[in-house]
Amino acid sequence: MSQRKAIGDAGRATIRDVAERAGVSVASVSRVLSGNYPVSEELRRRVMKVVRDLDYVTNAHARSLAGGGTPTVAILINNITGAAFAHVAKGVEGAATLRGWLSLVGTTGDDPERELALVNLMRQQGVAAVVLLGGAYDFEEYQLRMARFARSLDAAGSHLVLVGRPPLEGDVPATTVDYDNESGAYAMASHLLSAGHRRVLVLPGPAGLTTAQGRLKGARRAFEAYGVPFDPGLVRHGPYDDEHGYAAVKAALHDTPDFTAVLAGTDVVAAGAMQALRAEGLRVPDDVSIVGYDDIPLASQLTPQLTTVHVPYEEMGRVALRAVADRREGTGPAGRRKGGGDGEHLVLGTHVVVRDSVRPPRRHT
Amino acid sequence: MSQRKAIGDAGRATIRDVAERAGVSVASVSRVLSGNYPVSEELRRRVMKVVRDLDYVTNAHARSLAGGGTPTVAILINNITGAAFAHVAKGVEGAATLRGWLSLVGTTGDDPERELALVNLMRQQGVAAVVLLGGAYDFEEYQLRMARFARSLDAAGSHLVLVGRPPLEGDVPATTVDYDNESGAYAMASHLLSAGHRRVLVLPGPAGLTTAQGRLKGARRAFEAYGVPFDPGLVRHGPYDDEHGYAAVKAALHDTPDFTAVLAGTDVVAAGAMQALRAEGLRVPDDVSIVGYDDIPLASQLTPQLTTVHVPYEEMGRVALRAVADRREGTGPAGRRKGGGDGEHLVLGTHVVVRDSVRPPRRHT
Repeated sequence: MSQRKAIGDAGRATIRDVAERAGVSVASVSRVLSGNYPVSEELRRRVMKVVRDLDYVTNAHARSLAGGGTPTVAILINNITGAAFAHVAKGVEGAATLRGWLSLVGTTGDDPERELALVNLMRQQGVAAVVLLGGAYDFEEYQLRMARFARSLDAAGSHLVLVGRPPLEGDVPATTVDYDNESGAYAMASHLLSAGHRRVLVLPGPAGLTTAQGRLKGARRAFEAYGVPFDPGLVRHGPYDDEHGYAAVKAALHDTPDFTAVLAGTDVVAAGAMQALRAEGLRVPDDVSIVGYDDIPLASQLTPQLTTVHVPYEEMGRVALRAVADRREGTGPAGRRKGGGDGEHLVLGTHVVVRDSVRPPRRHT
Repeated sequence: MSQRKAIGDAGRATIRDVAERAGVSVASVSRVLSGNYPVSEELRRRVMKVVRDLDYVTNAHARSLAGGGTPTVAILINNITGAAFAHVAKGVEGAATLRGWLSLVGTTGDDPERELALVNLMRQQGVAAVVLLGGAYDFEEYQLRMARFARSLDAAGSHLVLVGRPPLEGDVPATTVDYDNESGAYAMASHLLSAGHRRVLVLPGPAGLTTAQGRLKGARRAFEAYGVPFDPGLVRHGPYDDEHGYAAVKAALHDTPDFTAVLAGTDVVAAGAMQALRAEGLRVPDDVSIVGYDDIPLASQLTPQLTTVHVPYEEMGRVALRAVADRREGTGPAGRRKGGGDGEHLVLGTHVVVRDSVRPPRRHT
């Protein structure tokens, strides 16, 4: 699909010029630039210095996105300021850099049109893989859309990887790297129930988002397991931001003030919830306990430090990149695997991180 | 420099097919897809629906990075999990999306080779501009390196934009969008001095980073203005992370425990400093005052909420994109401005945001 651009335009340094000046063979330069072979650090430095001096790297990297040189991975993310998925991107990038690959991040702003435009752009540019991050809305439409992406990328010799998203049904050539979202919520709710909490304000996230649905489901299962009635009146959906955490707690203190703990859908929502409790003169955890989800750095910067669910975001990114690299290496440079039927679903574990934001309730109901 | 790819491969939808099916003129479809002309929301929706149905967008976007269709802006950032510059990227993206442009983010991991590889890659792909974010190390090498980037991008019809970095000296075709870093630090230190603090622990950041140098300089100027001796023994350099804030405060409490306030180089450093004070049984702000820099969301999530310097990161991103768009529109689609001599330097203001982390000192020295 890709047109290779010629190396060595008139007047430009050629690979021979680089080899000569570095005092190494053309094959060595090629090895350094391809990033596909192990080379000594000394050789790499020497060649790269000449490459820079002669501005030769320009040509080498011209081939990158066209599939000829350095493999490139495209990461698509809803919002670049969302901490959790920035850590996935960091994991992908770290693993990519270790292999001498490049990575690029595009943001979709939750806009399906931009997502489509970026997937198509990346497919045309011949990236090794497109990694889509984050929860998905609207299950059926999502399945159709992703299956279309997967097939079109596969046909172009690229590959679709979904991270933190539901796996695709049927015979679709995509890799899914997921975490055990529901079990994390189950463990977190169990932690509150074990401490004696019975009336728990639940802020799972946006109602239509698969992530939020899983977290709510996990919490409900824990209530069932503990034989504690689950009150849907204590569930408040809303965006994963601190404004929602703040507003939801303010409203709940007015409508259903008998809750003794808050199960927040993310650490950021928990931060907003904490501010609201404090604004009403309630102490955390003395008066109200609170837990989060994600374990981003914020969780340990809050006062008190937040008990939360650890999601291995960076590791998910590394696993995603490795899955892509393994596919490429397994098939060799001569040909690429085609067609569907090789959907892969990797699930990483989650666990509760106990810090200082939970105490047994003061007032039982 | 770029090879245009033909629209309408055999068997693929053409722009005529889209126009016919949408019941509009070819010129209207072209206007919607170019993103360069104002079109009604209704027209955009109708055309984009057909574009999706026919998978036509593939061809339209195939031209994107090749400079023919949707303009694309590349943002290069050190670390995707750094909150401040993620907000700049968000500003660029928001303004790009408003114009129907695409944006991509590449991370350099503070590695000059990756930075070079990404700049060259993006130049070859014909992006409208490369936006480099974040403080710079090593002033002279930086100037040479950036001047080389600026000229090579300019020669390729692209443009270099530096955000939050020092402007380039001499006749270099680059745009710099900066904020008044030193004045922010001057105002922040003045705030502490006005409250009566005299012994202030200063954590400006990494010694070689231009951002940290400016913040330290601003603080020193404030001490001079107040006629208060500045003690270099109370300055501790280190990375912009909470581990450094924690470790620096721990060490200072041992070595120079008479400080009554902490002037942290960023909000994240302040968060670590707060944890260390608390771990030693000191209350903020009752025993020790503390201020940050950046005004990222974390600042108002901390307890107490952090007094800090507001940097208009998102606005800087929007300004950067607008500068690029204005350049393109000013020159029209037929030709591009060439050559140097049009370096542009835009500086945005900073201001202190007073929250709850400063009180007059208990113990004077």
